[in-house]
Formats: sequence, C-alpha cells, structure tokens
Amino acid sequence: MVRKSKLSRLLPRTAVKAAVPGTIDYIGSKPEDKVVLHLLDYDAVNVTEKDVSSVAESLPFKESPTVTWLDNSGVHDTKIIEDVGKHFGIHPLVLEDIANTTQRPKMEEYEDYIYVVLKMAYVDDTSKEIILEQISLIVGKGYVISFQERRGDVLEPLRNRIRNNKGRVRLCGSDYLTYAIIDAIVDHYFTVLEITGEEIEQLEDRLIAGPDQDTLNSIYKLKQELVFLRKSIWPTREVASVLQRAEHEIIGESVSVYFRDVYDHTVQVVETVETFRDMASGMLDLYLSTVSNKMNEVMKVLTIFAAIFIPLTFVAGVYGMNFDYLPELHWKWGYFGVLGVMALVAITMIVYFRKKKWM
Amino acid sequence: MVRKSKLSRLLPRTAVKAAVPGTIDYIGSKPEDKVVLHLLDYDAVNVTEKDVSSVAESLPFKESPTVTWLDNSGVHDTKIIEDVGKHFGIHPLVLEDIANTTQRPKMEEYEDYIYVVLKMAYVDDTSKEIILEQISLIVGKGYVISFQERRGDVLEPLRNRIRNNKGRVRLCGSDYLTYAIIDAIVDHYFTVLEITGEEIEQLEDRLIAGPDQDTLNSIYKLKQELVFLRKSIWPTREVASVLQRAEHEIIGESVSVYFRDVYDHTVQVVETVETFRDMASGMLDLYLSTVSNKMNEVMKVLTIFAAIFIPLTFVAGVYGMNFDYLPELHWKWGYFGVLGVMALVAITMIVYFRKKKWM
Amino acid sequence: MVRKSKLSRLLPRTAVKAAVPGTIDYIGSKPEDKVVLHLLDYDAVNVTEKDVSSVAESLPFKESPTVTWLDNSGVHDTKIIEDVGKHFGIHPLVLEDIANTTQRPKMEEYEDYIYVVLKMAYVDDTSKEIILEQISLIVGKGYVISFQERRGDVLEPLRNRIRNNKGRVRLCGSDYLTYAIIDAIVDHYFTVLEITGEEIEQLEDRLIAGPDQDTLNSIYKLKQELVFLRKSIWPTREVASVLQRAEHEIIGESVSVYFRDVYDHTVQVVETVETFRDMASGMLDLYLSTVSNKMNEVMKVLTIFAAIFIPLTFVAGVYGMNFDYLPELHWKWGYFGVLGVMALVAITMIVYFRKKKWM
Amino acid sequence: MVRKSKLSRLLPRTAVKAAVPGTIDYIGSKPEDKVVLHLLDYDAVNVTEKDVSSVAESLPFKESPTVTWLDNSGVHDTKIIEDVGKHFGIHPLVLEDIANTTQRPKMEEYEDYIYVVLKMAYVDDTSKEIILEQISLIVGKGYVISFQERRGDVLEPLRNRIRNNKGRVRLCGSDYLTYAIIDAIVDHYFTVLEITGEEIEQLEDRLIAGPDQDTLNSIYKLKQELVFLRKSIWPTREVASVLQRAEHEIIGESVSVYFRDVYDHTVQVVETVETFRDMASGMLDLYLSTVSNKMNEVMKVLTIFAAIFIPLTFVAGVYGMNFDYLPELHWKWGYFGVLGVMALVAITMIVYFRKKKWM
Amino acid sequence: MVRKSKLSRLLPRTAVKAAVPGTIDYIGSKPEDKVVLHLLDYDAVNVTEKDVSSVAESLPFKESPTVTWLDNSGVHDTKIIEDVGKHFGIHPLVLEDIANTTQRPKMEEYEDYIYVVLKMAYVDDTSKEIILEQISLIVGKGYVISFQERRGDVLEPLRNRIRNNKGRVRLCGSDYLTYAIIDAIVDHYFTVLEITGEEIEQLEDRLIAGPDQDTLNSIYKLKQELVFLRKSIWPTREVASVLQRAEHEIIGESVSVYFRDVYDHTVQVVETVETFRDMASGMLDLYLSTVSNKMNEVMKVLTIFAAIFIPLTFVAGVYGMNFDYLPELHWKWGYFGVLGVMALVAITMIVYFRKKKWM
Repeated sequence: MVRKSKLSRLLPRTAVKAAVPGTIDYIGSKPEDKVVLHLLDYDAVNVTEKDVSSVAESLPFKESPTVTWLDNSGVHDTKIIEDVGKHFGIHPLVLEDIANTTQRPKMEEYEDYIYVVLKMAYVDDTSKEIILEQISLIVGKGYVISFQERRGDVLEPLRNRIRNNKGRVRLCGSDYLTYAIIDAIVDHYFTVLEITGEEIEQLEDRLIAGPDQDTLNSIYKLKQELVFLRKSIWPTREVASVLQRAEHEIIGESVSVYFRDVYDHTVQVVETVETFRDMASGMLDLYLSTVSNKMNEVMKVLTIFAAIFIPLTFVAGVYGMNFDYLPELHWKWGYFGVLGVMALVAITMIVYFRKKKWM
Repeated sequence: MVRKSKLSRLLPRTAVKAAVPGTIDYIGSKPEDKVVLHLLDYDAVNVTEKDVSSVAESLPFKESPTVTWLDNSGVHDTKIIEDVGKHFGIHPLVLEDIANTTQRPKMEEYEDYIYVVLKMAYVDDTSKEIILEQISLIVGKGYVISFQERRGDVLEPLRNRIRNNKGRVRLCGSDYLTYAIIDAIVDHYFTVLEITGEEIEQLEDRLIAGPDQDTLNSIYKLKQELVFLRKSIWPTREVASVLQRAEHEIIGESVSVYFRDVYDHTVQVVETVETFRDMASGMLDLYLSTVSNKMNEVMKVLTIFAAIFIPLTFVAGVYGMNFDYLPELHWKWGYFGVLGVMALVAITMIVYFRKKKWM
Repeated sequence: MVRKSKLSRLLPRTAVKAAVPGTIDYIGSKPEDKVVLHLLDYDAVNVTEKDVSSVAESLPFKESPTVTWLDNSGVHDTKIIEDVGKHFGIHPLVLEDIANTTQRPKMEEYEDYIYVVLKMAYVDDTSKEIILEQISLIVGKGYVISFQERRGDVLEPLRNRIRNNKGRVRLCGSDYLTYAIIDAIVDHYFTVLEITGEEIEQLEDRLIAGPDQDTLNSIYKLKQELVFLRKSIWPTREVASVLQRAEHEIIGESVSVYFRDVYDHTVQVVETVETFRDMASGMLDLYLSTVSNKMNEVMKVLTIFAAIFIPLTFVAGVYGMNFDYLPELHWKWGYFGVLGVMALVAITMIVYFRKKKWM
Repeated sequence: MVRKSKLSRLLPRTAVKAAVPGTIDYIGSKPEDKVVLHLLDYDAVNVTEKDVSSVAESLPFKESPTVTWLDNSGVHDTKIIEDVGKHFGIHPLVLEDIANTTQRPKMEEYEDYIYVVLKMAYVDDTSKEIILEQISLIVGKGYVISFQERRGDVLEPLRNRIRNNKGRVRLCGSDYLTYAIIDAIVDHYFTVLEITGEEIEQLEDRLIAGPDQDTLNSIYKLKQELVFLRKSIWPTREVASVLQRAEHEIIGESVSVYFRDVYDHTVQVVETVETFRDMASGMLDLYLSTVSNKMNEVMKVLTIFAAIFIPLTFVAGVYGMNFDYLPELHWKWGYFGVLGVMALVAITMIVYFRKKKWM
Repeated sequence: MVRKSKLSRLLPRTAVKAAVPGTIDYIGSKPEDKVVLHLLDYDAVNVTEKDVSSVAESLPFKESPTVTWLDNSGVHDTKIIEDVGKHFGIHPLVLEDIANTTQRPKMEEYEDYIYVVLKMAYVDDTSKEIILEQISLIVGKGYVISFQERRGDVLEPLRNRIRNNKGRVRLCGSDYLTYAIIDAIVDHYFTVLEITGEEIEQLEDRLIAGPDQDTLNSIYKLKQELVFLRKSIWPTREVASVLQRAEHEIIGESVSVYFRDVYDHTVQVVETVETFRDMASGMLDLYLSTVSNKMNEVMKVLTIFAAIFIPLTFVAGVYGMNFDYLPELHWKWGYFGVLGVMALVAITMIVYFRKKKWM
C-alpha cells in the first residue's frame, strides 16, 4: 500500500500552520541526523573536500575562482538555510521553498542565481519501496548549493568523477556541475524504472501461472507507484526544457547541448512511465478476464456434477419410496434395469456436455 | 451522496426567473444571519477594525491613503451590493454576478477595479462534507471589498497577521492584500485535500481488509467530491495565471512574483486532485477485482461440497432402493464395501481439486 | 430510448435527395401548423407588435430606424425563406441552411448581415424528453430575422421585457437584441440541466436503494441525452467566442462585454455537461459493482445452505440404506448419535462460514 | 466481422514488393472489369459525353476552353495511368499513389495541378457492408481527371445535374466541379451514417428486448466499422480545410465558400462518427450490465430453489433412516407433524427471501 | 509474453554503470558476430562494393565525389565507433548514443553532419516475435554511415536497387540515400503491421469460435506488442517531420518532397497502430462479454436441472420415510399418483423456464 507519508507529501503547507508567506518552516518528518555541510571545491588542477561546520566557513571558497559545491544533508536545520540566505543573498520565498519538502519540481530564475527543485527517486534497500526525496539546487556563478532531505544520495558516483578527474566535469564551471547533478538524478529514475520493469515481468509470470489476491494487490501497488513517479518526473521535463534554452547568463551555451541530452532522458522516462502504466492496465484487464475464466470453469464443473448426479439421485429416490404397490420393485431385473437407465442418463449428459465443449 | 444543493449550484440562473441581464438577484438559499460589514483599515503604522452599519460609513476610509478591506458576510442583502455599486462605481453585470452564488471562478478587468470570483473550500465540522462557498473580490486602488456567502471563513489567520503586523502585508498595498486573500483560499484547498488524502488511505485499508457495499459507496462519494473540487479549482488556475501577468495597473510588478507562487499552488492542487481521481479509479478497479475474487472463492467452496457429496448421496440412494432383488444388500461386507467405495470417491475428488489448486 | 428523430437529426442531407447545392429544401418532419410571421418593432419610445401575412409587409419596418424582429414559427414554408432571401439579399447557401434543420451550430459573417444557427434546448412537457430545436438568426443593421421549427419557444420572457421596457433592450440596437436572444437560449440550457440534475439525484437515490434493470436503462438514457446536449452546446461555445470578438461592424463594441457573458455561460454549460457525464459514468460503475456485490451475497447464501445440508443429507442417506448387515442401525443410541453427529457437522460449518465472514 | 480486405487496405505497400519509389504498381485485388474512360465535357451551353478508348483521345477536349472531366472506372490498368502522366505532365510519385489504393486521404499541390485522394463510402447492396473505395482526383486548369477502383460510384446525381444543367455547375470551372465531386462524396458519408444510425437504433431495441451473443457480435462489428469510417473521414477534414483556404491559383476565391461548406460537413461527419462511437460504447456497457443482471436473476432462482428444498429433503432423509430405535416413526401424528415442520421451514424461507427482495 | 530484453531496452543507461557522459559504452546483449564493415560506393556510372577491414580503409572513398555508404553490422565493437568519431569528426555524445542501443528515435543536426537514430521493426523468422533493432545514421556531404545491432536488415532490396541502378538512387546524393534507407525502414513497419493484422483476424475468428485462456493471452500479447511498436514509431514521425523541412544544407530541396512521402507513411503507421489498439481493446471487450454470456448459459443449465429435480427428489424422499402411519403409501394408486404429481411439477418448471427464455 502507498505509505501515508507519500500522500501527505503531495501537499505543500498544512492549514494548521496558516503559514506567513516568506517564513522558513521545515515541512516534513524530523530525521534524527545532524545536518552535515559537505564542501567540494575544485578546478582543473586541485580538489578540496571537507565537512564545514557553518556556512560562513565556506565563503572563502565561494570567493575563489574555483567551482564550489556545498551540499547540505538535511533541511530541518533552518538555521543553515537562513545563513545561506544571508551570505548568498537568496530571496525569502526561495528559502521557504527549500525548507518545504513538498514542492513540485520547478525552476526559478533570479538575477544572479537559479533555483531548481527536483525529486530524487531511489529504491529503499530495506523496504523495497520507491523513495522520492526532494533536492534543491541554488546555482550561482562559481558555486552550487544543494539541499537534500537526508544523508545518502545518488550523487556519489559524480563526486568520485570529480575526485578522480574523470570526464569533463573538472574542466567546466558551475553550470556543467548543475548539469551533472541533474543528469545523475534523472539517470537514477532509469534505475528505479528498471527495478519496476523487473517487477512487471514477475507480475506477468505470476499472472500467467494463476492469479490470486496478492497479484492483484501488487498490480494495484504498482499502479499507484507509477502515479507518483509520473507526478514527479512530468514537471522535471519542463525544468530540463527551460534549462536547455540556456537563457540565464549562468548557463553557458556549450552546456546547453548537455541539458538537451537531459531533456531527452526525461522524455524517455515520461514515456516509459506511460508505457508501464499501459502495461499495468493491461495486466489488470488480463487479471479480471482470467478470474472470469476460472469462475466459468468452476461453474462448469459444478454444473456437470449437479446435472449428472441430481437426476440419478432422483431415480434412486423414487425406488426408495415405500409404497405398498410399486410394481417395478418386484420385477426380477428391476434393479439392474434401473442401473441401466441411470447409466444411460449419465452417458447422455456426458455426451451433451462434450458437445457443448464443457468437458 | 452529493447534496442536492451542490448539483443545483453548478447552474447560474434558474429559468423560472427569466432574469433580466443586469438585475441584482440573490441566487442561493437564504441564510438567517444578518449581513455584517466588517472593516479593516491599515497602513504600516495603524490598524482600525470595526463593524460598520452601512457602506456609506466606510467611504472615508476608502478616501484615506491606507488600505481598506471591507468584508461582507453575506450576499443575500442586495441593498448592500447596490450601495457598493453606487459608491464605488461598479458595473451592473458585476453586481449581478456577486449576488449570484453559482458563478464559475473568473477574473474580469475594468477600468479602475478588478473583479475576482473564487470558491472557498473547507470541510464542514459537523457533516464532514466539503463545502464550496463563493467569494467575490472587488480590488481597487487602496481598497478590497470581499463578499462571502456566510459568516466564518478561511481568512481569520490573515486578519491576525494584519492585526499583529506579521509578514509583509502591512507594508504593501491592496494588490498584496488581494494576493494574501487568494493565497489563503488556495492554501485551504490543501487542507481539504489533506483530509481527502486521509480518507483515501482509510478506504485503502478497508479495501484490503475486505470490501463491502459501504466501502463502495464511500469510493463513489469520494469520486463525486473530487469532480466538484476539480470543477472549482481548474478555473482558479486561469485566474492566478492572469493575475501573475500583472497587466492591470492595480497589480504592482513586485506582487507579480507572489501571484506566480499562487499559480504554482493552484497547479499543485489541480495535479493532486487528478492524482486522487486516478487513485479513486484504481481503488474501484481493485474493489471490483476483489469482489470477483471473493465470488470465485465462494463458488469453489460450493463446487467442492457439491462435487464430493452429491455422488456419495447418490450411492447411498442406490442402496436405499427397495428392490426385492438387489443382491449387494445381502452381501456380508456390502455396507463396509460401500463405505469404502464412498471414501475412495471422496478422496479422488479431493485429490482432483487439490491438483486444480481449488483447495 | 433515444428517439429515432434524434439520431436522424445528426445528419444534414439525405442521400435520396442528392441535393443540388443552393436549393432550399425543408429537411425535417412536416409539422401541421401554418407558419406565423410575428413582427416586433421597437425603439426606446414605441413598440409595434403584429402578425404579418407576408415578408413584404414587414419591409417598411425594416427601413425605419427602429429595431425590427421578424420571427418565423416554422421553416417548412420554403416560400417565406425565398422571400426573405429576395427582400433582404441573403446568400442562397444561407437560405438552404435555414431550411435544413440538421445544421451544426455555427456563425457565418457576410458583408451586411450575420448568420447564426443554434439549437434551443427544452424539456417537452408531455414526454419529459429533451427537445433540441433549431433556430436560425439573420442579423442585419436594424433588424433580426429568426426562424424556428415550430411555435412556442424560450423567448417569450424576452418579448415581455421588450413590451414592458424592462432592462436595456429597448435602448439598444439589433446587436443587443441578438445578444438577448442567444442569452435566453443558452440560459435555457441551464433549465434543462437543472432538470437533468434532479434526474441524476433521483437515480442516485434509486441506486442506493437497490439497483434494477430500470435504473440501468435510465442511466443509459441519461448518458445518451448528455451526448446529444454536448453535441449541440459545444459548437455554440465557438459561436459565442467569435461574437464576443465583435469583429463584424453590426456588433457594437459595447455589446461585446455581454457576449463575453454569454460565452462564460456556454463554458459553464459545457463543463456542467461534462461533469454530468462523469457522474453518469460513476453511477454506471456503482451500478455494476453493486450488482456484483448482490450476486456475491446470493452466492454466499446458496453456498451456505448447500454446504450445511448436503453433507447432512448424505449421512441420512447412508442410514437409509437397506443392507442386511448395517450394525449402527441396531445400536440403541444410533439414531440420537447420528443426530448428534449431524448437529456437530452443521455447527462446524457455521463456525467455518462465520470465520470467513460469510454469515 | 471486418473483412480481411479491409485490414490489409490500411497498409500502403507490401514488403514482398520492396517497391522502388516512383514505380506505378497496382495495389489491390484485381477486378475483372475492363477500365472505362468516360469523358464529360461541358460549358454553359454544350455538353459532350462519351466513352473514349485512350487518354490521347481526350486531349482535344482538354485543350478547349470547356471543362473536361475524364473519369477512369479502374486503376488496375496502369497503362492508362502512365498515359495520363505523359500527356498531362503528372509527377511520378502521384502516378504511383493513384495506382496504390491504400492511400490515406490527402491533398498535394503541384505547380499546375492539385492531387486529391479521398475514400468514397457506400453500403454494398448485397452484403450490407460499408465499402470504402479510393478515388483520386487530378485537378488542372479546365480539367478534372478522376480515378476510381471500380464501376459505379456516388457521382451519378452530379452527372445528371451537369447533363440537365441544374444548379451552378455548368456556369463554373474545374474548381467548382472538384467541389461538386468532393461534396457528393462527403454527403454520401451521411447516407452511410444514416444507415448506421438505423442499425444502432435496431441494436438498442434488441438490447432492451434481451441481449444475446448475436447482439454482442453486432455491436462489436459496428464499433469496428466506425473505427474504419473515422480513419477515412478524419484526414478528409484536413483536405477540405486546406482547399477552403484556396491558396492554389486553380481554386478560385468564389469557390472557397463552397469548400467551407464541405469542411463544415466533414466536421459534422467526424462528430457524428464520434457520437456513434460513444453510443456503441454505451450499448456495450448496457449489454454487460444487463447480462450481469440476468445472471443475478438466474442465481436467485437457483438459490431460492436450493435453499427451500435442500433442508426439506434432509428432513425427509432423516425419517427415511432405518434405525431400529427411531421413536418419531411410531408416533401417530409423526408424518403430519413432519409435513407441518416442512411447511413451516418452507414458509420461513419464502418470507426471508421476500424480505431480501429476491422474490 | 513480452521478452525481458524488450522491457530493459526501454531504459538507456543502467545505474550500476554510473556512466560518465561522453563515454562510448556498448549497452545491449553481446552478439557473437564479428562486426562487418560493408562499403558501397556509387555514382551514376560505377558501383564499388566490398567489405573493408577498418574505417581508415574507407576514407579514400569518402573523399571521392561519389556517394559512400559505410554499413556496420554491429555496435558492440566500440573501437570502430571511436575510429569513425576520429576520422569523420563526430561529437562524443553522438558516439555514445550510437553504442547505446536503447535510444529513443531522434534526429540531431550538427554543423557538417546529421545524426539520425531509428528502430527497424521486423518479425523474427523463428520466434515469430516483433524485433525492434536500433539503426544509427550519420549523414554527411557525400557519405552515409549506418550502424546496426546485428547482421541482416531490411535494406537488402535497396542495395539491389543501387547495384542494378533501378530508380533514381544512383543519380542522387547522400540525402536521397538517407531518404531511401529511412523509407525502407518505415515501409518495413507496414510488413510488420500486415502480419499483425493477420494475427488480429485470426484472433477474431478464434473469439467467434469460442474464447479460451489462450485467446486471452494472445490478445494481451498483441496489445503489449502494439505498445512497443507505438513507442518506436511515434518519435520516428517527428524525425520525418523535421527532415521534410530540409533546413540542413545536407538535405537538398528536391529530396524534401520524398521526405514528405516518408512522413505521410509514418503518419499512416501511427494511425494503423492506433486502429489496431482500438481493435485489440474491442476484442478484449468482446472476450469479456462472451465469457459473461457463457457463464450465464452455464448457470441457466445448472439452475434448470436443480430447479426441476430438487423438488422431485424431495417428493421421493417424503415417500421414502418410514413412518408407521403414512396413509398415502397404502393407497392403491399412490405410486402412480406421485409419479403424476412429479410429472406435473416438472412440466410446470419447464413451462416457466421456457417463458423466461432460459430454455
């Protein structure tokens, strides 16, 4: 079943709060973890990596000509978000949106930075459920600040590429880093879809083997999960579409072609989700039809048994009556005659049902 | 079941009336309450709040440079609407629309004011039903006039913010107040959706536990309620979309970004409603399939019982016949032999059904 | 069931006719009534109202500066249509369309007149069916000619407003009269929808009380009626949309805002029809599910009876056998023992079914 | 069932052929008929009509200022198509398309001619099936060449109008002739739809009377036929839409208004087909629900019989047991007492079922 | 059932890989075959055809003014792709896309070449399944490089046309060759659809003859296959649409009309796939309804047998009771009287069921 937290995550602000616009309020369940500020600063030659204790500590790196990536492992520490707002000059509405983990994926352009909200999708190792975690990016000239909901993400391979100087990332600016982050996030949707695809194939096998209530519940669960995936990837497509137009000065022309690639991938994710939904609907139809078939078969067995034996039992009942005058009872071959009649009736019925292709 | 009043509220004018265009006629059930004219006048420094007895009494506040919010707790007192029309120079068609509580949410721009109609959604405390109440706003330079259907609304937190000078509202003009009102209304849709979401989760639990006619009626009711919610939020989206473009001089450029936020929220409400509709459809499919499954199970039990005992009863019937010459009856082990045959038949049937996985 | 005439009305020309384009041929069933030419001529001061015997008789009124409304109560008298064509200079294709009562609602602009075809919807008092009657309007400078299919229409309240000088109609020209006519027609859709809404609510009550084949047929009939309503209101929306743009010189700027109002109403009608279709579909789903539920219940009762009594009957059958050697028959407590066993079996079954929640 | 030829007609070229683009290959079943070249040449004063033996024979008529209509009764004689290509200077791709009777309706503009492909729809007199026959038109200055698949078409009334000088056709050029041909074709869709409409009404009557497998197959057949009609009329709409814009010099401005009329008709055909599809779906729903209802009724009868008689039979079985000590058997009123108990049981059951509204 | 490989082919990159953008990694199952580089070089006069061992060997042909077609029978040899990149100056992202066989059909324009990815559809001779193989085209001035997944393709007829100088291909440049390749691929979709169409017709026949679980599974399989076909032809339509606009200098104006033809064909494929989907849905509905019908029939047989014989058996049971005082048993005509009553009951039931049209 869809977890409660999922449904409530569809909704941005609770009415109880009666939120004042522009207030930074963490919306979400409070994780225990202390928020870690992880800093990764690099250019083509050097990489600096360390955990900083405050936003202020990262400011020297921001000023340097290198690319600075400041990653927050949580958004429930609103103090950090406020500090970022103060030191980097971020609009209050953006800070509010960062703290609110129920955002719809979107992109907003401000004068000297871009704000991007996306949903990271990954499959929880323990519960095998699809988790959608919100990630906010603030992209400025020479720096990217990312806000996640908890530790652990889908970006570790990207960090390794930076550390080991693989690919182009170390040669480019914060725009390419933004691309690399979004690319990693969108690509991880494929991993999730791959697992979903395997689930679909297993469900198909189970459907063929014979449908039961468990299969049905699994198909239902699958459909609901696809509803949620679709809801988070659909606006991501719009985000990629806008980024590819590279209208903000922070996004260089040369990176635009990479965002086109991301856009193509989001289109592919969207289409795959739609295809999976079509397949899930197809499976439900198959399920229903198969159940109907089985019921039909059960009914046939019942009807065959009833139609053969009920008349026979009736005949036996007749000759079990205790009338004083019941002539057949005294015939010598009465018993065997009746047995013969019964056999005849039974055979007739069987021939009839065979003709109707019920047997 | 959907309340009668809801269905009739979809329709603007009754034919019986054969309304003359431009006539102010109250359309709706007459509430008992006397209409209260509540006035809230503020600037960055001062707040004046009082109930006025007539529209004329509020005119001095309108003339002052402060922001004036005149709130009417009812629209069945057409005298007040006429007065507003006279003193504020409002077009007769607008006055007619205010009195008619079956409007579709819309926005109309006039030379020196803007007319906005929306639906407030909230859950009635007693009946637990979703209520859609119409609210009309007339927004002019320095004043906002709001017309509600009855006392009590979703705007009290906003009034408190004005009284206590929280947030930006006291620093801005009537355009920001309009934003704040619309924002409060749209945000309240989330509260309603949150309650609906909980209802969905409870329905899912009940579905899993075992479907009954009540669950079915609840799913049906849920679907109908979502139809109505969708019908009122969909055009609200268009209203927010137009306001965000800030083409009328009353809406300042700086407030435009806030209306974009409202627009984002209406999009999120629309998508959530669609998602809920998808989920409700999914539940209905699950319901139907589960009922089919249960019926199949019932049929199997019936068939198993019938197929095992009907042949046995027949055999018993045969040896209950009163033929003079029925040799088996006189065999010493006849009875036990027959019992043995019966056991054999029963076991065969059981094996057969086990093979078919019916048991 | 949908009346035959309705289906055939979807189709403009019959093939049998192999119509020559530009020929005026009445398409429709011939009503008995003589066509009445009703003339209403007015300005702010005077009203002249009379039945004229020929189109020529109305020409002096047309020439005068007053607004002239010539209303034809039938289109099967093609002579009148020809006369109108001759005296008012109307294009042959328009005359052909007027006579053909199977038009799709549309608007065509010609140099000095506008041609509008709409469908009037009303509920027949006797048959309680929704009637869609075609009305054609020719709107020129200072005159409006309307062609209806039969006597009696939804425009009488409008005529009363003209006679009694209520509202703005006497102060305005033929464009406002056109608006007033179209407004009356569109508003009458609401009346029809109100009646349909009541029907839906009654159907819902009947569904809850217990579904039968009649309810089903009613839902089916409702859905078909909504299909037809939708088919005639959908293009009406386009007509209103074009009129509101006021691009033809006959439509004055000041009337444009009124056509916007009509457009809003057509949108509301369209949305309400769609909502009703959604609700009708919802009811059909509910119907089907409820039937499934009932069937399930019936099956349970059958299965419970069969599963309890068939084994008992078998036991009774066993001790009704006539074997010479059947020791239990001679036991003293044999009978009561068997009764006890039977009771035990019955109780076991009941417990079992209670556990399965079938009882 | 849909005829095989229909399905294969959806597909333009067979892979077996591996066609070289620009090759004229007849695609379709070979009719036996010899292709007839029928020539109709006219102006306002004279009409010449004759069968010509070769394309060359028609060239003098083409050169004359009269309008020349050359009609081919078949496209399997590729020699004629080649000749047309040679004498009239037609592009090889067009010649290839003419021979290929599986085209999608379309219009292509070339420098001095227009190529139009449409599907003629008519109901075969014998099989009562809807036939879709391809017709290609080459429209040049002063001539129209039409290619049909077989003799007999829907254009005979048009030819009569030309012969008898009815309507405007004799006064206009090849553009009006093109309009008249297309108009005749589109109008014939209405005839087909009229017949389909009658079929729908008959199906509805049969549905109400009681559904059987034949009704079901007929609804299925109807739906498939509508799929094919829709597939051929939908692109026809686009063709009419382009022609109405009259952008090619061959189409005169004055004929444009007539093409608008054709366009309106195609829209009406499209909408009617959609409406019919909606109705067919509605009938299928009604069918399914009615079958469910009937099954429910059958189940009730079965359950009532079983529930009343199975307990009674059990009681009879009990007193048919042969126990030595079975006291009730020896009571004086035992038999009548048992009969009374049985009657009581039966009445109780009947009351119970009446309460459940099963009887 | 849909093969596993199909589902996984919907997804471009696996997360396990955590691919660095711009890396050439073969994605797909490794075929055993050695990749063959097949070169076809031609102009109007000469044709050279040979297998080359390396990309370098083909470079002299590229430089010559003839048209060079270099065809790779596999993409798992990434060395070749790298060589092509080096010698022809291809962008790294394109090389990456070539190696990745899970691309969505698309077209990308670069300064001096065009990159096109398509899916070739053909039916596997052995498994009778629809195979979708990726083909990449790099189109430059005077050369076309194609990359396929394995040996054997749908292009052999085209090669024969080049060898035998049939049609226009030898007279035109690389743009026409590109057209010819894409045309061959799109045309092969028709072959696949033709086979699918035959399958649909066979399924219809089987449905009419009597539905079973196999038919159901086949319909399900068909629907899933159509989902995949649709997914690959839909973006192909966009590709053809862009190519027809001929905005890149490599595509000559004169070839544009041919791409329009390809576009028309893709539209026809898309519509046919949609039609087939409609038909498959129609078949599923027919299937479900037919199963319901059959079940109804089975139920009727059961009910008739039960309702006739259960009361009779009861009567026989009554007179099989062993009461001392059971007067009817001693009547002379008791037995025959009872038989008569039984006959009466049976006849009554039969008449009743006939009236209900169950027999």
